[in-house]
Amino acid sequence: MCARLSGSVLVTGSNRGIGLELVRQLCESPCPPTHIFAACRDPDGPNAKVLRDLALKHPQLVTTLCLDTTNQGTIAEAARLVGDQLKDGSLNLLINNAAINIPGSLADTGEKEMMEVFLTNTVGPMLVTKEFLPHLRTAASRPGAQSEMSCRRAAVVNVSTLFSSIQRCHETFLRAPMYPYRVSKAALNMLTRCLSEDLRADGILVMALHPGWVQTDMGGPQAPLSTEDSVKGMLNVISSLSDQHVGALLDWEGKSIPW
Amino acid sequence: MCARLSGSVLVTGSNRGIGLELVRQLCESPCPPTHIFAACRDPDGPNAKVLRDLALKHPQLVTTLCLDTTNQGTIAEAARLVGDQLKDGSLNLLINNAAINIPGSLADTGEKEMMEVFLTNTVGPMLVTKEFLPHLRTAASRPGAQSEMSCRRAAVVNVSTLFSSIQRCHETFLRAPMYPYRVSKAALNMLTRCLSEDLRADGILVMALHPGWVQTDMGGPQAPLSTEDSVKGMLNVISSLSDQHVGALLDWEGKSIPW
Repeated sequence: MCARLSGSVLVTGSNRGIGLELVRQLCESPCPPTHIFAACRDPDGPNAKVLRDLALKHPQLVTTLCLDTTNQGTIAEAARLVGDQLKDGSLNLLINNAAINIPGSLADTGEKEMMEVFLTNTVGPMLVTKEFLPHLRTAASRPGAQSEMSCRRAAVVNVSTLFSSIQRCHETFLRAPMYPYRVSKAALNMLTRCLSEDLRADGILVMALHPGWVQTDMGGPQAPLSTEDSVKGMLNVISSLSDQHVGALLDWEGKSIPW
Repeated sequence: MCARLSGSVLVTGSNRGIGLELVRQLCESPCPPTHIFAACRDPDGPNAKVLRDLALKHPQLVTTLCLDTTNQGTIAEAARLVGDQLKDGSLNLLINNAAINIPGSLADTGEKEMMEVFLTNTVGPMLVTKEFLPHLRTAASRPGAQSEMSCRRAAVVNVSTLFSSIQRCHETFLRAPMYPYRVSKAALNMLTRCLSEDLRADGILVMALHPGWVQTDMGGPQAPLSTEDSVKGMLNVISSLSDQHVGALLDWEGKSIPW
């Protein structure tokens, strides 16, 4: 099956884990996007070697970008570079994937931990979305754009987590308190919902996606789901998004998660 | 009807609006708490005159305290003073009421606004709860304490809002975007839920309470509910809390609000 993701895509946190696998599968798809912007904090550093190799293998398709979601200057510069490179200024799909985790119990969690994780996981996606909004609006309103919302028209996908669910907190809390992470991701869900209401009139679809518990640096080796299967599922879900998914929180199989 | 709130109570943000009215109604109840700690940022300043008058009228019942929820030093000092004043070190009820609002649209909202409101509205209640936890634990475990949880044993009530509901965001968003406020209060709901799971084993009940849309400085004069009626309802709800309300989000009439 070919996940239909035409147009241009930007992925943050693309040097490892789910972000890297998103870029890999998009590159190697039989129907790849027209362009992939693979953003991460340090695309020239030692933690981005695999990403650089991928970009070298697909030079027409992939551009790596320096973008630190906690640094407004790098976000603005990345948006400028993307605007220069896109012929018509249209960005079709923004995947806000960059995030950090601090496995904090109450005793381990103070102001510093809460603020740091909130800045990266919640404020970061807001700043990135704001900065790329002109390119998303151009994509949504270009002549010939469908009237239905989709990732082929213009969409923002915020990578959330089952741990963001306030309703389902009790299932996992005692095993993994993670105060800063859970709080930041519930906050991200609200941000997603606000953005989805705000940008609906522009034809930009905004939703949140839970990748599953995945074998990444963050998920650990005991996770039940491979990065490959998670991302395969995510891309299927993303490619099938339509008006009915505005403001939704779905998992990698397309199932709805309660707030 | 007498809201049964025996024991000691601490209210943050008690110099105006709902916080002030909570202190007033608790003072004037036919069955008042044993002691009321009325905390605010500047209890000696011009914005706390009504609170000071109330404390002068009820000198045996009310102690005003300096507590800025964004300043760890003031929280620690307030907890020390409360510990000194409480004979047995038991605090039965903590009402995290202090909050700020910035009526931010997406265009008006940046990192500064998001971080500032999150610090006061989300991190503040966490820091305050952590600091007063020894006194709450003492109350929950003192000889003769009921086995059921309640505000008479030990409870933390976080003042939330209908605007915290991700589910119901679409009802009010376009009229009042309020990105920083909504995001901070959804984050507070997750914090509430985490704390409720964490502190259940200690016998401390944690929940969130929506006061309604109230005629305060924050709610504005067009709000449908008087501060008096809101607080009357809140105190009825608080006094009736039991095991089944652990981690709940209720309104001033006791109705459940979806996350």
